[in-house]
Amino acid sequence: MDEIRIISRPLADSTKTILIGFPGSGLVGSIALQYMVDQLEFPQIGSVTSKYFPPLAMMTKGVINIPVRFYEKNEIAVVIGDIPIHPMICYEVASGLLDWFEKFHPKEVLTIAGIVTNEPEKRVFGVATNADSLQRIQNHAVILPIGSISGIAGSILTECKIRDITGLGLLGETVNNPDPRSAAATIQVLNKMYDLNLDIGPLMEQAEEIEAAMHRIAEEVQTTEAGQKKEQLPMYG
Amino acid sequence: MDEIRIISRPLADSTKTILIGFPGSGLVGSIALQYMVDQLEFPQIGSVTSKYFPPLAMMTKGVINIPVRFYEKNEIAVVIGDIPIHPMICYEVASGLLDWFEKFHPKEVLTIAGIVTNEPEKRVFGVATNADSLQRIQNHAVILPIGSISGIAGSILTECKIRDITGLGLLGETVNNPDPRSAAATIQVLNKMYDLNLDIGPLMEQAEEIEAAMHRIAEEVQTTEAGQKKEQLPMYG
Amino acid sequence: MDEIRIISRPLADSTKTILIGFPGSGLVGSIALQYMVDQLEFPQIGSVTSKYFPPLAMMTKGVINIPVRFYEKNEIAVVIGDIPIHPMICYEVASGLLDWFEKFHPKEVLTIAGIVTNEPEKRVFGVATNADSLQRIQNHAVILPIGSISGIAGSILTECKIRDITGLGLLGETVNNPDPRSAAATIQVLNKMYDLNLDIGPLMEQAEEIEAAMHRIAEEVQTTEAGQKKEQLPMYG
Amino acid sequence: MDEIRIISRPLADSTKTILIGFPGSGLVGSIALQYMVDQLEFPQIGSVTSKYFPPLAMMTKGVINIPVRFYEKNEIAVVIGDIPIHPMICYEVASGLLDWFEKFHPKEVLTIAGIVTNEPEKRVFGVATNADSLQRIQNHAVILPIGSISGIAGSILTECKIRDITGLGLLGETVNNPDPRSAAATIQVLNKMYDLNLDIGPLMEQAEEIEAAMHRIAEEVQTTEAGQKKEQLPMYG
Amino acid sequence: MDEIRIISRPLADSTKTILIGFPGSGLVGSIALQYMVDQLEFPQIGSVTSKYFPPLAMMTKGVINIPVRFYEKNEIAVVIGDIPIHPMICYEVASGLLDWFEKFHPKEVLTIAGIVTNEPEKRVFGVATNADSLQRIQNHAVILPIGSISGIAGSILTECKIRDITGLGLLGETVNNPDPRSAAATIQVLNKMYDLNLDIGPLMEQAEEIEAAMHRIAEEVQTTEAGQKKEQLPMYG
Repeated sequence: MDEIRIISRPLADSTKTILIGFPGSGLVGSIALQYMVDQLEFPQIGSVTSKYFPPLAMMTKGVINIPVRFYEKNEIAVVIGDIPIHPMICYEVASGLLDWFEKFHPKEVLTIAGIVTNEPEKRVFGVATNADSLQRIQNHAVILPIGSISGIAGSILTECKIRDITGLGLLGETVNNPDPRSAAATIQVLNKMYDLNLDIGPLMEQAEEIEAAMHRIAEEVQTTEAGQKKEQLPMYG
Repeated sequence: MDEIRIISRPLADSTKTILIGFPGSGLVGSIALQYMVDQLEFPQIGSVTSKYFPPLAMMTKGVINIPVRFYEKNEIAVVIGDIPIHPMICYEVASGLLDWFEKFHPKEVLTIAGIVTNEPEKRVFGVATNADSLQRIQNHAVILPIGSISGIAGSILTECKIRDITGLGLLGETVNNPDPRSAAATIQVLNKMYDLNLDIGPLMEQAEEIEAAMHRIAEEVQTTEAGQKKEQLPMYG
Repeated sequence: MDEIRIISRPLADSTKTILIGFPGSGLVGSIALQYMVDQLEFPQIGSVTSKYFPPLAMMTKGVINIPVRFYEKNEIAVVIGDIPIHPMICYEVASGLLDWFEKFHPKEVLTIAGIVTNEPEKRVFGVATNADSLQRIQNHAVILPIGSISGIAGSILTECKIRDITGLGLLGETVNNPDPRSAAATIQVLNKMYDLNLDIGPLMEQAEEIEAAMHRIAEEVQTTEAGQKKEQLPMYG
Repeated sequence: MDEIRIISRPLADSTKTILIGFPGSGLVGSIALQYMVDQLEFPQIGSVTSKYFPPLAMMTKGVINIPVRFYEKNEIAVVIGDIPIHPMICYEVASGLLDWFEKFHPKEVLTIAGIVTNEPEKRVFGVATNADSLQRIQNHAVILPIGSISGIAGSILTECKIRDITGLGLLGETVNNPDPRSAAATIQVLNKMYDLNLDIGPLMEQAEEIEAAMHRIAEEVQTTEAGQKKEQLPMYG
Repeated sequence: MDEIRIISRPLADSTKTILIGFPGSGLVGSIALQYMVDQLEFPQIGSVTSKYFPPLAMMTKGVINIPVRFYEKNEIAVVIGDIPIHPMICYEVASGLLDWFEKFHPKEVLTIAGIVTNEPEKRVFGVATNADSLQRIQNHAVILPIGSISGIAGSILTECKIRDITGLGLLGETVNNPDPRSAAATIQVLNKMYDLNLDIGPLMEQAEEIEAAMHRIAEEVQTTEAGQKKEQLPMYG
């Protein structure tokens, strides 16, 4: 039994770029890319499963969705995950994905993740597997002097470097809540890099709603003792 | 050694539907389907075991029963589990079951599970792997806007989606006790979907007995300090 | 490397019954069957080991004994374990034993275990894998209405059921101490089922010694504060 | 990858006896046999390693030593371990060693270990895999009526019994500190069994030094509050 | 899937020595060798990855670096790790590296690690797999009478000993902080052994900066209660 199982039609010959977003800090990568495929109407072309993934079916308006999905349109393939990848299997997932994508000779693999900085800004930091490709993103993103990237984003970048595939990383400055504002900031970089012309207005509205809700909760906690009002999401099993 | 071991005669050519119920919240799935096979006298046709299942033999009137069983009658095959499936092996159990059932080209696979909502109602929620089949159940069940289904029911629905097998899910609103009333609600949906004509009277009586017993216990706890009277079930080893 | 390793000469063609006793509650199964093979002078014919067993050598009068042993005489083969089987490996041990025994087409496999009931009686409860064989033991043992049997005894009964081998279980009512009195009760059932004519007198004397010792300890604990006198068994390594 | 890896020249045809000592209670086995090979100048002929051993290099006067070693001289082969064998791998180590040694048809395998009794004496207890070989050691060692031997010594004795190789065990009465006095007691038994003529004087001096140091520490702890003087051994990494 | 994956061009025929440094106490090995390859401009020739490594990409000025790297120049190959090797995989990493290097018949393998002694000195201790090669380093390093080396350095030395490859170890006396001063001390030994002529001035300046910073922190902690000023390094995911 393989470590991960990819069920997908092959990529189109014209596809040059792979964008990858898994949930991490601020869910930046998965929010940004799900927004992109929804707005630009990328068709889903495949899915990924693994015995190591948590037993979970996602559901939207009653229809089941597979937690890790492939989309493709206009020379771009996209991988979106709804489930976090456990550190123990990041290696298997990263090398399994790149084994599959490598067959289609992508020009570059770009990973989006979040970076918690405790700063109010929403900067986007950029990394790359070599100096040449770093030049491509240094006009659009801040270059970090030193550090490390952990989790599935780190594994994908390391795998790209090892396989000599151009790997890029966009790290949206974020906090530990779902963060559409940081996702929007990474989309603005994608807009410049790939001429996507994607309107980030709806994402910003969503961000304002989340922020307003959090602001209200913070005020309620301050002004009342109870502070325990919480919407219940149903749990299934 | 395979992950799960299926010992069964093949399904009949006429069988179109697979119903699956494992114990989860409220034991809704296993109570509903065990009641159905008992009332409609479905013969047992096979069983499932696994090195990953807990070491356990079930027993009714002194006769041993295998914890996971196959039944079949009137174009319907049924899988009933008496043991909960550990999250670590849901993938193996779901893909092992579907590997076997896929050979018989079922028209649809319907999973019954419980959903804890902290509401007194006994609604039944419906999900499906595609919009077409969702239509089939939306007259009989409530469609949830968004959420996730965990455990073996989630794994089966994801596997169906990946394999392009029509998968349906009925989630009976329940609490964390054995819940024949919620099981009865899901049976009423099965009655409509498969013309089963199954009388839920006995299940409702059983529900009333359990509820009366719980009511008595709650009153005793309130009126006396002792509150520790508890029938002892023997434990074996 | 196999899960369990059986080193034994083949069973005699005449052997029809396999008796199995591993230590569980009250050590009922291993005490009963060790007593039987000692009294009836069953020769040892083989042994079982496994990488999953604890690293342990048993020793009697300076001579090493293998923790799991096969005996055979008068149409009966016996499996006795001196070590408890961990829940994680019950499946492997049960299916490994039955893989081996199945080759010799036994008429029935009878497992002896303990059942803790917090009652002073020493009843013997009986279970079987089918209604026909349940009839054989219902004159000698109490039939339980509903319940489950866990551990290696449960795994062996489930495996018998799955393989369509007649499986019987005798559960001696016991407490959580070594319990020769409960073992004696199960031997009286064996006497009737297999015409063994085995005298349980010595076992009953042993039971009285253990009970007297426990009575003394209980009294000492009550009358003195110390109550800490305890015979030290040497530990090796 | 094998469970254990043996790098050694073959045993000499003349070798009849295998002596084995791993660290356990009192380090009796490894102290006794290391003393023996040093005094009698046994050349090292091989070594054992395993992915399951802790990552560790031993060092004497700056020269690295492999933690498990083979020696051979005068019809005797010796296995000495400097590292304790974890219970999880005793089976693999014992069966791996015996797989290798069995090819050279040893007459007997003798294991030395410690036995904690909380008695001041330094008796040596003897066990054997059969009554005949027990006779060989009962003049030199005390025979225990009943009990069990755990750890690698227990696994080796069980493996010998299973493979029908004569297995002997010497258990030196000891405490939970390095115990040259108990090691010396086991050497006196080896002297009688194999005519080794080994002087235990230096071992006894070493024992007296350790005991004097412990006596001093105990006195210091009693007479002062500090009692914390402790020589620091460097830790590497 | 192999335990470790080496992606590298073959070593040059002229290469005689392998230097290995992984992070351990004081990060002595990795600081010393990274400094060496930077100063002497060793080109990187390969990299190592493993499913057992933590999911992590290192980054310098925005460019991704693989956590374990090979360098080679002037008859010397160098292995530098930026990630600690977990005890559970030291065996696999050590034997995987030596499987690969052994093909190129190196004259010697030298490992650099730290040794915590709680002494203010920065001595370098030397060990070797045989007495002849110990002579090579005993003029430059202190020889320890007895002890053990744990972790990946211990595994490499043990593997060298087992394979009969000359193995040397330099253990820089250190504390549990990054310790360029100890790294510098080991480089002075390398200077003598391999005529490297490497200036340790910059390392000593770095050491003074770290020590001054620690001194300041210690003073602040003493004079103020706050003492909590700490530079935040961003964490990614």
